[in-house]
Amino acid sequence: MCSVASRQKAFPMKTYVAFSLLFILSSCTAEAWRPPRFLRPRSHNFSFSNGQIGTPSSKHSVPNSEYEYETKNFTQRLDHFSFKKHANSTFQQRYLINDKHWSGAQAKGPIFLYCGNEGYIEWFAVNSGFMWDIAPQFGALLVFPEHRYYGTSMPYGSHDAAYKDGDSLSYLTAEQAIVDFATLILDLKKNLSAEASPVVLFGGSYGGMLAAWMRLKYPHIAIGALASSAPILQFEDIVPWDTFYDIVSNDFRRESENCFRVIKDSWSLLESYGKKDEGLHEISKKFHICRDVNGIEEIGNWLDSAYSNLAMVDYPYDASFLMPLPAYPIREVCKAIDNFPNDADILDRVFAGVSIYYNYTGETKCFDVNDDPHGENGWNWQACTEMVMPMSSNPESSMFPSFTFDLESYTNDCIKSFGVEPRPYWITTEFGGHSIGTVLKNYGSNIIFSNGLWDPWSGGGVLTNISSSIVALVTEKGAHHLDLRQAREDDPAWLVEQRKAEIQIIKDWIYEYYQEKGLYSFNI
Amino acid sequence: MCSVASRQKAFPMKTYVAFSLLFILSSCTAEAWRPPRFLRPRSHNFSFSNGQIGTPSSKHSVPNSEYEYETKNFTQRLDHFSFKKHANSTFQQRYLINDKHWSGAQAKGPIFLYCGNEGYIEWFAVNSGFMWDIAPQFGALLVFPEHRYYGTSMPYGSHDAAYKDGDSLSYLTAEQAIVDFATLILDLKKNLSAEASPVVLFGGSYGGMLAAWMRLKYPHIAIGALASSAPILQFEDIVPWDTFYDIVSNDFRRESENCFRVIKDSWSLLESYGKKDEGLHEISKKFHICRDVNGIEEIGNWLDSAYSNLAMVDYPYDASFLMPLPAYPIREVCKAIDNFPNDADILDRVFAGVSIYYNYTGETKCFDVNDDPHGENGWNWQACTEMVMPMSSNPESSMFPSFTFDLESYTNDCIKSFGVEPRPYWITTEFGGHSIGTVLKNYGSNIIFSNGLWDPWSGGGVLTNISSSIVALVTEKGAHHLDLRQAREDDPAWLVEQRKAEIQIIKDWIYEYYQEKGLYSFNI
Repeated sequence: MCSVASRQKAFPMKTYVAFSLLFILSSCTAEAWRPPRFLRPRSHNFSFSNGQIGTPSSKHSVPNSEYEYETKNFTQRLDHFSFKKHANSTFQQRYLINDKHWSGAQAKGPIFLYCGNEGYIEWFAVNSGFMWDIAPQFGALLVFPEHRYYGTSMPYGSHDAAYKDGDSLSYLTAEQAIVDFATLILDLKKNLSAEASPVVLFGGSYGGMLAAWMRLKYPHIAIGALASSAPILQFEDIVPWDTFYDIVSNDFRRESENCFRVIKDSWSLLESYGKKDEGLHEISKKFHICRDVNGIEEIGNWLDSAYSNLAMVDYPYDASFLMPLPAYPIREVCKAIDNFPNDADILDRVFAGVSIYYNYTGETKCFDVNDDPHGENGWNWQACTEMVMPMSSNPESSMFPSFTFDLESYTNDCIKSFGVEPRPYWITTEFGGHSIGTVLKNYGSNIIFSNGLWDPWSGGGVLTNISSSIVALVTEKGAHHLDLRQAREDDPAWLVEQRKAEIQIIKDWIYEYYQEKGLYSFNI
Repeated sequence: MCSVASRQKAFPMKTYVAFSLLFILSSCTAEAWRPPRFLRPRSHNFSFSNGQIGTPSSKHSVPNSEYEYETKNFTQRLDHFSFKKHANSTFQQRYLINDKHWSGAQAKGPIFLYCGNEGYIEWFAVNSGFMWDIAPQFGALLVFPEHRYYGTSMPYGSHDAAYKDGDSLSYLTAEQAIVDFATLILDLKKNLSAEASPVVLFGGSYGGMLAAWMRLKYPHIAIGALASSAPILQFEDIVPWDTFYDIVSNDFRRESENCFRVIKDSWSLLESYGKKDEGLHEISKKFHICRDVNGIEEIGNWLDSAYSNLAMVDYPYDASFLMPLPAYPIREVCKAIDNFPNDADILDRVFAGVSIYYNYTGETKCFDVNDDPHGENGWNWQACTEMVMPMSSNPESSMFPSFTFDLESYTNDCIKSFGVEPRPYWITTEFGGHSIGTVLKNYGSNIIFSNGLWDPWSGGGVLTNISSSIVALVTEKGAHHLDLRQAREDDPAWLVEQRKAEIQIIKDWIYEYYQEKGLYSFNI
């Protein structure tokens, strides 16, 4: 429940929480601020379409044109888990493949499979430079299957048909997606006569969750998984609900106590604009919004989104993952906020700060805070069905307005939006999570959970070793799946070390696999 | 393909193979003898209804009236793996429960969960005396959930509605059934405040497959599984297709070479009746069939069923599991066959033999070989969808007519019967099976695969230890899940030993679990 009564009126938005692991934009309820509903930034070059991230048209998000691949399609079964007859029982799943460095089927060359997440697969492929970097030394085949209902991998023949309603969306689940990967890779191996090639899974964010879960459920298909920034514990009450926003807040506080304070103080001022005559017009003008906002929550969401996304991509060098940004972007945001006289207007300072995020190139003249009036996309559906990841904002520690996750209003809103009732206990029923240390101590093997503690999603991650082969590689300073990115000359030493450890562990998995297959000559 | 051309005409039956793990009756194709299509004996007291085994009305199958339990229902989700809206989205799943010996929630008393298989749950409950025997020493709660689409646990409100067509049957799968068990037990634990109680799975035959798979897929829900006579490798080409019929044949040959030979020679004689004028009438009369058979294959199936079932229940003492039978029933069958002059009619001898199986009580005046003209039941559907377990009969080693599994005709027949195409590679995609020793060597834990080598299903079982905690307990002489039966004074020493080992291993699992939970005082 919202602890500040006045906010209850100020932000009368949808109540359910749809928190794409890669994109965040806040919404709020009739009672409380809420974590993001919408998943995408609302302005400028980094375009989005169809509620997905990383469209192929957003060319500046493709940092390495040297990544070459073939694009193929695979006829995939719509429903792996029943024998119901459908008019559209199959769909075309897209995947990218690169065999440039593959040592081949005869040599049992390994296959590196990226578990595609909530967006166009090209975007994940080119932002997973680590796989491309290490493919030569492993002689690995690279395969990047797209997640069903994202990119061009649309059941029912088109995006519109796939996203028509709750019924058409009903096969958009993590379990179906994982079997897609399993089915695809088995078929591919058969076609390549590479049945004996070991498969190693990779994934970041939601893709990392899929990689970890796939290794847990399908050990006969993949020998191990690198699950980077995979918050598989962000369900039910496994981790404290405050964690996400506390980490975002600490990321800002670490750079500047003043910056943290300015942001924390800004919400009530923002709110006051919502109550004034002409307030919405004034605040829209102040924040260079192209068209006047319809409610103050639209600005609130826009700011929340910027802060949360900044915490995720607080990389030690300039990058264009979510937005073109400088190195340590939170530091730059806080510099912009701090670089005002003490008596300066707090909202001017906040605007200067978020402009680093939304307009680092300086090319944007005005912002569109609400470019998806339907708010309909794949992750919203997933959040309204199985991906119920509770979050709260603690007034003691968070720089965001206070709110507490409320399942009832979340549920009601999902029923309103999709006619579907979330199953908040399903993920832990299907994949576990509670007492994971005890459960997996003598069970399972070969998973790396990598996390950087600057990443707000690390709060829901596995941060300690579970066994000798289910291990946590944690860096104090890393942001969201930084380790999956391409190596650079200016990588900090701790990142170089983390990747080195990952490579060694993956080598051990493969070496052990070859040993068991009686192929000792392999030398990596 | 049928190796004897004349048989091709003689047995023009359905081509697909539906081999209930507990009941077998043969069918044959236009080209070849086939393993059983129908699942149930056709006569006398052991009644079946609705294509299920072990109806509550078959009282003589309930050996121990001292087994007391409460019967309850649980509202179960029809489709765990999608969010499709159904008019009938839930159904009532029945389960039996006994807490007489439970040490309770506070003591974290263990829960023994039997994974119900293809029939009425009471029947499995009372034929799993081992669980009842050991409950007191473990302080265990006993829970026996019924498998969906069997017994009274019918989706869509009734058997007729559930079995209406391929669409209504489409949620009858092993994966859905396993999640039923998971969901039920989580709910039960919550209601009993027994979240911390360890769950141990038990199952025999198909139920044993479910137990093993559930432990593999849901280690967070069950700490271990005793999978008795679970042929999880009887898929694709993991084990030789001849195995099942070879073991049946060897079971007879071991008792008497002459017996084996008489049976082997009987098929061509049987076939000659199919070609004679009045042959069907004559053979029906000879075999005391109540009404003349419509084709010679009906007798063939009836015999095949008797031999295969006898091999499964070749127990060392008298029992009434499938039929009321004496100790070592194959020995008795062969005695009856051998107890003729050398020049006696072979079919008279065969009839005397199978009469031990079908009419040990001597109460049956005539037999009904075909009491299910529709041949429609749950296992047939399962065999036509995911449970594709290839079998052949090798002319060199088998006493059955020669035939080879043929996926194409199998598929065609399933399409004809249910409008559904089998997915022969699905089980290994979902649960694995190939290279199981390598895959599970460093993965998973706490599964006992128990098998008796007299049991024809042992050919598809796990017969060697995979790791220190995934172990095989194999007895040379045991038949189908003999170890799950109630202990008796006259149990052979090897069976006593096998059960003792099982108890010790289960104790170790529970002890380890308590240790990890910091509860050291437990002493079993």
